[in-house]
Amino acid sequence: MSIENLTRKKVNFDNPRSFRATLKSHLKETFFPDDPFRQFRKEKFGGRVVKKAVQYFIPIFEWLPNYNLRLFQFDLLAGITIASLAIPQGISYAELANLPPIIGLYSSFVPPLIYAVFGNSKHIAVGPVAACSLLIANTIGEKVSHNDDPTLYLYLVFTATFFAGVFQTLLGLLRLGILVDFLSHPTITGFMGGTATLICLQQLKGIFGLKHFTTKTDVVSVLRSIFQNRDEWRWQSAVVGIIFLTFLQFTRFLRRKRPNLFWVSATAPMVVVAVGCLFSYFAHADKHGIQIVGHLNRGLNPLSIKHINFDSQYIPVTLKVALITGLIALAEGIAIGRSFALMKNEQVDGNKEMIAFGLMNIVGSFTSCYLTTGPFSKTAVNFNAGCRTAMSNIVMSICMMLTLLLLAPLFSYTPLVALSAIIMSAMLGLIDYEEIYHLFKVDKFDFLICMAGFIGVAFISMDYGLMMSVGLAMVRTLLYAARPATCRLGKIQDSYLYRDAEQYPGVTRIPGVLALQLGSPVYFASSNYIRERILRWIQEENDISNGGESIVKHVLLDLSGVISIDTTGIETLIEIHKMLKARSIKLSIINPRLDVMEKMIRSHFVDKVGKQSIFLCIEDAIEASSFSLSTQKE
Amino acid sequence: MSIENLTRKKVNFDNPRSFRATLKSHLKETFFPDDPFRQFRKEKFGGRVVKKAVQYFIPIFEWLPNYNLRLFQFDLLAGITIASLAIPQGISYAELANLPPIIGLYSSFVPPLIYAVFGNSKHIAVGPVAACSLLIANTIGEKVSHNDDPTLYLYLVFTATFFAGVFQTLLGLLRLGILVDFLSHPTITGFMGGTATLICLQQLKGIFGLKHFTTKTDVVSVLRSIFQNRDEWRWQSAVVGIIFLTFLQFTRFLRRKRPNLFWVSATAPMVVVAVGCLFSYFAHADKHGIQIVGHLNRGLNPLSIKHINFDSQYIPVTLKVALITGLIALAEGIAIGRSFALMKNEQVDGNKEMIAFGLMNIVGSFTSCYLTTGPFSKTAVNFNAGCRTAMSNIVMSICMMLTLLLLAPLFSYTPLVALSAIIMSAMLGLIDYEEIYHLFKVDKFDFLICMAGFIGVAFISMDYGLMMSVGLAMVRTLLYAARPATCRLGKIQDSYLYRDAEQYPGVTRIPGVLALQLGSPVYFASSNYIRERILRWIQEENDISNGGESIVKHVLLDLSGVISIDTTGIETLIEIHKMLKARSIKLSIINPRLDVMEKMIRSHFVDKVGKQSIFLCIEDAIEASSFSLSTQKE
Repeated sequence: MSIENLTRKKVNFDNPRSFRATLKSHLKETFFPDDPFRQFRKEKFGGRVVKKAVQYFIPIFEWLPNYNLRLFQFDLLAGITIASLAIPQGISYAELANLPPIIGLYSSFVPPLIYAVFGNSKHIAVGPVAACSLLIANTIGEKVSHNDDPTLYLYLVFTATFFAGVFQTLLGLLRLGILVDFLSHPTITGFMGGTATLICLQQLKGIFGLKHFTTKTDVVSVLRSIFQNRDEWRWQSAVVGIIFLTFLQFTRFLRRKRPNLFWVSATAPMVVVAVGCLFSYFAHADKHGIQIVGHLNRGLNPLSIKHINFDSQYIPVTLKVALITGLIALAEGIAIGRSFALMKNEQVDGNKEMIAFGLMNIVGSFTSCYLTTGPFSKTAVNFNAGCRTAMSNIVMSICMMLTLLLLAPLFSYTPLVALSAIIMSAMLGLIDYEEIYHLFKVDKFDFLICMAGFIGVAFISMDYGLMMSVGLAMVRTLLYAARPATCRLGKIQDSYLYRDAEQYPGVTRIPGVLALQLGSPVYFASSNYIRERILRWIQEENDISNGGESIVKHVLLDLSGVISIDTTGIETLIEIHKMLKARSIKLSIINPRLDVMEKMIRSHFVDKVGKQSIFLCIEDAIEASSFSLSTQKE
Repeated sequence: MSIENLTRKKVNFDNPRSFRATLKSHLKETFFPDDPFRQFRKEKFGGRVVKKAVQYFIPIFEWLPNYNLRLFQFDLLAGITIASLAIPQGISYAELANLPPIIGLYSSFVPPLIYAVFGNSKHIAVGPVAACSLLIANTIGEKVSHNDDPTLYLYLVFTATFFAGVFQTLLGLLRLGILVDFLSHPTITGFMGGTATLICLQQLKGIFGLKHFTTKTDVVSVLRSIFQNRDEWRWQSAVVGIIFLTFLQFTRFLRRKRPNLFWVSATAPMVVVAVGCLFSYFAHADKHGIQIVGHLNRGLNPLSIKHINFDSQYIPVTLKVALITGLIALAEGIAIGRSFALMKNEQVDGNKEMIAFGLMNIVGSFTSCYLTTGPFSKTAVNFNAGCRTAMSNIVMSICMMLTLLLLAPLFSYTPLVALSAIIMSAMLGLIDYEEIYHLFKVDKFDFLICMAGFIGVAFISMDYGLMMSVGLAMVRTLLYAARPATCRLGKIQDSYLYRDAEQYPGVTRIPGVLALQLGSPVYFASSNYIRERILRWIQEENDISNGGESIVKHVLLDLSGVISIDTTGIETLIEIHKMLKARSIKLSIINPRLDVMEKMIRSHFVDKVGKQSIFLCIEDAIEASSFSLSTQKE
C-alpha cells in the first residue's frame, strides 16, 4: 500500500465545490456559452461601458460610425438587387399565405429597417418565407376562412405575427437559444424538402389556372384536387406558366455553371413579373383565362396596431401558429446567418439575432406586415451581390418605399401564373437531394429524422411532420443516453496507450485484468444497462479463456469519458462494487472527472470503495494490483 | 511528414463496417444487452436445447426438479407469514381502489400461482399495491362512479387489468425494458412519497369515521373535506384508530431496532384485523359509529373473462389506466426484485419479469383479480422470513384458498378504521425521507425530479405528478446532450498524462498548444455550443497570455470520450477546421473512437482534414506539430 502511493500519480480528492459554484458554472454553460459580457468585465463603470453596452445591444451603433462611401457602393448594388427579388417574392408569398398581395410588399419595407438596426449578421436580407406563409394559411385557415371573412383572417395573421415576435424576443432575452438547437439540420432539411414538394404541387393550381382547389395540404388531397378539376384547366395559362418556369429554371442553371452571373437569376423573377404585366395588359389576358393579381393601392403601410386581436376564442390558434412559425423562422434565419458568416470567418450571436427578429416582427405586426425572417434565397443573392453591412437592407427598404408610393398599381396586372412559376422555381431549389443522400450515406438515423420530416409534412400535415422529426431526434438523444457504448480496452504494443480492442484488434490483453471504458453519461436510463453489460463483459472474457487460469480477477472502469453522473448512476457503481466483491473480483475506478468525483465524495462512494481503488490512469491500477497480488502470494 | 509517421503509433483508418453490421450491433445493445441466448449458441438443436429453452422461458422447470424438503421448510414458513400479511393488505387495498373487499383476497390467490411458474425472482411476493389501487380508483372513478354503477366500475377495473397485462407482456416480448429504465429512482421515490402522503391523509376519513368525502385526490381537497365534515367525526372511531395505529407503528419501530423480530411487524396487521373483528362482533361496534366491511362470501374466484369490456366509450379510460399502472407496477416490481436479488448476489432478468407480471395480470383479469405486482412491504417480509424460491408464493396462495373457502365470512366484521390504520402505517413507511435528503445532498437535479413527482402527485394529480417527474428527467438528459462539458487538458508533471486543468490545477501548459477534451455525444443539439465554446477557449487562452508570444497556434481536440456523433456534429468539426485555418491555427484530432471514425471516413472528413492531422494520443500530436514548426523555421 505505502509503496504504491509513493510511485503513483495523485488523484485529486479535494472537497467538492459548493453548490453555488457548481450551479453558476452549469447555468453559464447552458445559457451563456459564448460569454457575451466578457468585454465589460475588465472595465470600470463609466461612459465607455455605457457606449459599449449600447453598441452591444444595438449593433448599428457599432458599424455605422465607421461606415463610408466605399462600403455604401457595395451595399447600394446589393440592396437594389435584393429589392428586385423582394417585389415578386413578396407578392407571391402573400398569395401563398392567402393574404392581399400588397401585404407582401409592406412586409419588405418595415422589417428590414428594424433588422438593420438590431441585427448582427451582415448578410441576411429580410423578407417573408414560403414555409411559414403556407403554415399560417393552413393553421389560421382551419379556424377562419380567408374567403368568408378576409378582414378577420388578416387581423389574425397580424396577431400571430405579433405573438411570434414576442416569443422570439423572449427567447433571446431569456437566452433560450438552446430551444433552437433542437431543430436539427436533418429536421430542417426534411421539413423544407417536404414543404417545397407540397408548395410545388399546390402551384399547379396557378399554372393550370384552376378556380376551385382543396384547402388541405397533403400531397394526396392536392393531387386529387388537380386531377378532379380537369374541366377547369386552361391551356393558355399552362403554356404561359411553362414558358416562365423554363426561363427561371434556365437562369438558375446558368448561375450554377457561371457563379458570377448570379444577378441574372436574381433579377429573373422581376423580369417574369414585368413581362407578365405587359403581356396581360396588352393582350387583355384576364379575358383569356389568365387570372391577374388585381388592384394594388398606392401608399405606405397603414398602422395595424389596433387590429391585434386578443379575443380568447382565437388566442389558441394564433398562439399555436406563432410558436411554430416563430421557431422555424428563427431556426432558418439563424442557421443561414451563421453559415454565410462562416464563409467570411465571422461570428453571429444567436441570442441577439433572436431579439432582432423578434423586434422586427413586433413592429411589423403593428404596420400591416406578416411574419418575416432571413430567407435563404434572398440572403444568398445579397451575399453574392457583395453586401458589406446591414445597409443593404435599408437600401432594399427604400426601394420598396418608392415602389409602394409610385409603382404599386403597375403590378396589379401581374398574372397569377407568373407568381406560381416564381414560387415553383424557388421551391425546386429548396429540395436538397444531395444533402438527403449525404445523410443516407453518413448516418442512417439522421436520414430517418430527415425523412420523417419530409414524409410527415408531405402526407400528413406541416406541424405533425415537424413534430415527428423533432420527436425522433429527441428519441435518438434519449436512446443514446440509455445505451452509452462501453468498450474493452487493450494495451497498444510498445506504448502506454490503452485503446478499444474492437477498433485496434492488435492490442494485448493483460491476463486476469478486464479494462472497460464507460460511455457518458451514467444516468438513470443507462444504469441497468451498464450493470448488465459489465457482467456480460466478464462472462465473455471468461468464455474466451476456457481454462481456469486467466479468469477475470480485476475489473478496471475507465471513467475518463464520463462527464456526468446522477445518483442512480452512483448507486449502480456501488452495486457493481458489491457484485464483484461477492465474486472476489477487485474493482478499480480510473480517472473520474471533476463532476463525477464530487458526487462520488458527497455520496460516500469514495469511502465505500476506498481511495486506494481510485487511480489516475490504467497503468497505475494494474501496477498496484499486481503488487497486491504478488504480496498476497508471498 | 515521413519521419513523423515512422515514430508515431498508427491510427486505424480501416474501411467502415457495413451498415448491417453496425445496425446489428446497435440493436443488440439496445434490446439484448444481457445477451439472453448466449447459452443456446454453442449447442446443436436437439432435446437439450428444447429443454433449456423451456427452462429459460418457464423458470419453474429450472428450480422445481432440484427442489427438496429442506428448501420447502423455509418457503413454508415464509409463505404463511406473507399470507397473514396478504389478507389485511388485500382487503385494505381493495377498499382503497373502491372495490369489494373480496376482490383483494381473490387477487392474492391466482396471480401468485402464475408468478411462481413464470417469475424469475426468488424473493418477490405478489399482491396488489396502494399506489396503483388509488390510481385505478381516481382515473376510472372519473368516468364511472363506483357508487352509481358498482358492477360496471368493477368490470372496467378487470378490463384495465387485462390491458395492463397485455401491455406488460408485450413490453417483455418486444424487449422494451428500456421504457422502464426511464422511470428513474428519484421519480419513483417522489411518486411513492407523494402517493403515500395523499393516501395517509385520505385514511383520516376512515379514522374519523366520515361518511361523506371528496372524490378528488389532491392534498388541499382532501384536507378541506376532512375539516368541513367535522360534524361527522366519530370519537369512538378515532380512539380505536389511534390505538391500532400506535400498535402498528410500535411493531415497525421494533423491527428497526431488532431486525430478527421482523415477524412481529409482519403479523401485526393480521393481529389488528383479528382484534378488530372480535371487538366489533362482541361490542356491536357498528352501532356505535364504527363502520365494518360487511358481507364477504365464501368461495373461490368466479370467472370474469366474459366481463372484460371492449365498449369503445370506455376504451380510452381503461387503456390510460392500463398504461400508467402497468408501467408503475413493472417499475416497482422489477426494481424491488433486483434489489433483493443483489443482496444474494443473484440476477433478475427484467424482460422475463415483465412477461411474468403480464401473464399474471392477464390471467388475474379473467379470474376476478385486479392489478398485482411485487410490492415492497410484502417482498421484504418474504425475504426476511427466509424464502428460498417462488414456492413461498404458492404456499401463500394455498393459504388464501383455504381462507376464501373457510374463513372469509369471519372478516366481514373487520372495522374500516382497522383497515385505515393498516394502510396509514404502511404508507408512513413508504415516505423515504432519508433517500430524499440523500438526493438533496448528492445531486440537486435528482432532488428536483423527485420533488416534482412528490409535489405534483400531492397537489395536482397522480398522473400529472408522474409525467412532470419523468418529463424533468428527460429534460435533464436532453440538456446534458445539448451542453456536454468540454475541458482544457494540461500535462501532469513527470508523466505522459493529460488531465482536466480545472480538476488538477498543477498541470503544465504547453506554449501555443490548446488541448481540449470534448464531451459525448457530439449531436445536433450540442454542435453550436461546441463551436462557440471552442472559440471561447481560444479567446480565454489568448487573454491569459497578454503578450503576443504564446498565442494559440495549435488546437488539439481529444475525442477519446466521444462515443457517438451525427452528421451535424461532423459538419461542426469541419466548420471548426475552416475557422481555425482562417486564423492560421492548426487543428489535430486525437483518438476518434470506432463509430466516430467510421462516420468521419464516410463523410470525407478525414480527406478534408488530412490523415496526418489525426493522432492516437496527445503526445504524438504535439511532437508532430513541434516537428513541423521547427521545419518551417529552417
